[in-house]
Amino acid sequence: MNTLIPNSNDAATHYDLIVIGCGPAGQRAAVQAAKLRKKVAIIDAREVVGGVCVNTGTIPSKSFREAVLYLSGFRQRNIYGSAYRVKSDMSMADLTFRCNYIMQHEIETIEAQLVRNRVDVIHGHASFKDAHTVEIESTAGHWTKTADNFVIATGARPYRPSNVEFNGTSIFDSDDLLQMKDIPRTMTVVGAGVIGMEYASMFAALGVAITLIDSREKILDFVDSEIIESLIYRLRAIGVTFKLGEKVESCKSREDGQVVTELKSGKVIVTDCILFSAGRESATGKMGLEKIGIIPEARGLLKVNEKFQTTVPNIYAAGDVIGFPALASTSAEQGRIATCNIFNIEAHPIEIPLPYGIYSIPEMALIGKNEKELTDKEIPYETGIARYQENTRGFLVGDRDGLLKLIFHRKTKELLGVHIIGEGATELIHVGQAVMAFKAGLDYLINAVFNYPTLTSCYKTAALDGYNKLRQQRAL
Amino acid sequence: MNTLIPNSNDAATHYDLIVIGCGPAGQRAAVQAAKLRKKVAIIDAREVVGGVCVNTGTIPSKSFREAVLYLSGFRQRNIYGSAYRVKSDMSMADLTFRCNYIMQHEIETIEAQLVRNRVDVIHGHASFKDAHTVEIESTAGHWTKTADNFVIATGARPYRPSNVEFNGTSIFDSDDLLQMKDIPRTMTVVGAGVIGMEYASMFAALGVAITLIDSREKILDFVDSEIIESLIYRLRAIGVTFKLGEKVESCKSREDGQVVTELKSGKVIVTDCILFSAGRESATGKMGLEKIGIIPEARGLLKVNEKFQTTVPNIYAAGDVIGFPALASTSAEQGRIATCNIFNIEAHPIEIPLPYGIYSIPEMALIGKNEKELTDKEIPYETGIARYQENTRGFLVGDRDGLLKLIFHRKTKELLGVHIIGEGATELIHVGQAVMAFKAGLDYLINAVFNYPTLTSCYKTAALDGYNKLRQQRAL
Repeated sequence: MNTLIPNSNDAATHYDLIVIGCGPAGQRAAVQAAKLRKKVAIIDAREVVGGVCVNTGTIPSKSFREAVLYLSGFRQRNIYGSAYRVKSDMSMADLTFRCNYIMQHEIETIEAQLVRNRVDVIHGHASFKDAHTVEIESTAGHWTKTADNFVIATGARPYRPSNVEFNGTSIFDSDDLLQMKDIPRTMTVVGAGVIGMEYASMFAALGVAITLIDSREKILDFVDSEIIESLIYRLRAIGVTFKLGEKVESCKSREDGQVVTELKSGKVIVTDCILFSAGRESATGKMGLEKIGIIPEARGLLKVNEKFQTTVPNIYAAGDVIGFPALASTSAEQGRIATCNIFNIEAHPIEIPLPYGIYSIPEMALIGKNEKELTDKEIPYETGIARYQENTRGFLVGDRDGLLKLIFHRKTKELLGVHIIGEGATELIHVGQAVMAFKAGLDYLINAVFNYPTLTSCYKTAALDGYNKLRQQRAL
Repeated sequence: MNTLIPNSNDAATHYDLIVIGCGPAGQRAAVQAAKLRKKVAIIDAREVVGGVCVNTGTIPSKSFREAVLYLSGFRQRNIYGSAYRVKSDMSMADLTFRCNYIMQHEIETIEAQLVRNRVDVIHGHASFKDAHTVEIESTAGHWTKTADNFVIATGARPYRPSNVEFNGTSIFDSDDLLQMKDIPRTMTVVGAGVIGMEYASMFAALGVAITLIDSREKILDFVDSEIIESLIYRLRAIGVTFKLGEKVESCKSREDGQVVTELKSGKVIVTDCILFSAGRESATGKMGLEKIGIIPEARGLLKVNEKFQTTVPNIYAAGDVIGFPALASTSAEQGRIATCNIFNIEAHPIEIPLPYGIYSIPEMALIGKNEKELTDKEIPYETGIARYQENTRGFLVGDRDGLLKLIFHRKTKELLGVHIIGEGATELIHVGQAVMAFKAGLDYLINAVFNYPTLTSCYKTAALDGYNKLRQQRAL
């Protein structure tokens, strides 16, 4: 590693760019600067690279998800019956078995990339002295670094309100959830955002009775309604109870070890454990932001303009620290774009829409617009739908509930959005992404030959469905 | 069903198109004609629709493959160790459990499609009386039908030479292989074409010691060498012995139940069973082709021009009956194009390259050119490679050996070919297909944001690898 030793001869080095935070946004911001042959350092308060993504967030949760899918036999139940399990006496240890191993692999991959690109890596807590200077404190010592530009990519941590008695044994946030000792029988999940839904669906697949609470009436409202309704329907079928439009008064543990969630509506929910995942707060405290005139918003959120620039012109921010959508893929892209903007490089030589992937069970993915957005904008569209139950590979892999929905312009037949729920959704979406990027639509999907059997051929089925709807309307 | 009753009032109906054979090529040819509002019938000698694809070929083999992957725990061995099995006392019955169910589902789907499109379905054996008339014989009776045009899509059956003592109990062809009673300990596979390789790899994954024999020195030569060499390496690692450049003298069963393969080189291989899959022969016998002047080539192969037209102008042929590549996807497309050509419809409003998928374990897929083809044509290319072991999702799903290779033009950076071996290959190839269809290349793949973690992001890794190679060559 190019990790710096405090007080070394390099201590006074001036950088073109200093990135604070080494998650996906920070890494990409730093690597992009290095590719532009800039002198760049990345500072992270953790002892390891990777940020929340690798250490407590995306990677552990996706490792856990794979283990759940596999050991629970979830994918096989349509074939072998609903009581089917690969391992009937599963423990949390079985389920988290591969996590550490995969985390270590990711950390090594990131370190190798930073070394290869000659990014200086500094482990310590950074705080601004002025808009061009940071002071760094670590157990190893203390030093000062200057740079022309900064990207703040310090990420976010779970929001922990005082009315929730977090204890790490029965009341968890999303960062310590997987430290859980035993698989509970019952679980309350407060907050039906991406993280809450992902974990709720994983534990539901394990057979845990879940109560999911959210103050909003409509969850994940950036996802197409039909897809979300399908998810809700399927989660209910495996034992999830939804309590939407409900506010939480408190979460407490009881003497008998049970935990109690009181709702403002007076209802009480008693379960073995609670995951509180109602939002995150940006990690912007103790950074000296007040000294340089950056005032974070509620929950520490940094506000940026379309260039990912804060109110201080040479300081940019990217990733979870700026809020929605706070996904590893989008954060990385924000980091890249921030750096391109800093150095006046065209960030988007090609305009390519961004996909969203949600790793619930089943997976969901989307790109482009949803029906509501298009209706609001009065853009005339039609939809085409393919169901996995009519797709040979969907049938083969035991997913009979998957759905792929195309939204296309009624006149031009250009693809405006793709929404998928089901096995492989997060991968499949990228065919739609390419079609959209090249401004193509139904004609491409109808004429392309796809391997047989594949889930990808749902695109053709859906395109034909859409085409037939147009024909019935005599719009063709 | 619109199945015709012999000698009904419809008996004298004249058709715009009669399709003979109801596999993927025949179905698509018939449905395409129906969509063009032509009067069309499809004749099949089987009692059910679907052809070899559904009844003995693609669908049963892919169902078997899913069961092998799952019950053998093959995907999980990188995570849980090489001795890992979901079911240690697996039987053939466990492995073929889902086949019938999936076949029935496919048959119903095809029947529904034919009914919906008002295609007359006739079960019986068709033979030509003249270039516009066929006679149909079935157990139910006999009748004569006329049509302006025909598409022959009768498919192929395993080639069964007389020096191989097929018995359906220990010496099998690919159509009766899955009737096998018990999983053998040892198996000889003669013929390393697509079918031979698929079954050899499946049985190898089950732990069967396989000896694979082919008269060619180089197998599957339309696949990129690096991909094939990777497959061979991995199959050897799980117990496959390759005997290439070896001709078979005979295959016989011995009194003790073992089977003996004698090679022309004098070697003898003794195993529990043999799969003989050295080619197929087109099902063109007893069709009265001699009466209309069509002379099939060796192994019954029908020769067609680029319009899929035989030497008789109103008679076309598509699918396995015309030979390579004889995949369900390509056969269906040939059927569609044949019909479009018959009715003078532009078959390719958009030029989209055809993907190839091989459902071996691991999967392989390719599109466009391979290195050898480009070298022969003196087209300057460079490659970019991504290995699944460096891909987070590859790691998560336990595939550390997968490989995605991009081949692109050294000057224009346009994508010329994609070659993949590993989990999801047959799906992933379609992103490359879209990029190639729109004449794009590295710039798209470098700039696109892909969901994280996904296998699809191998495209970006490979594009960056290719880009770096160009930069090192100062070609950028």
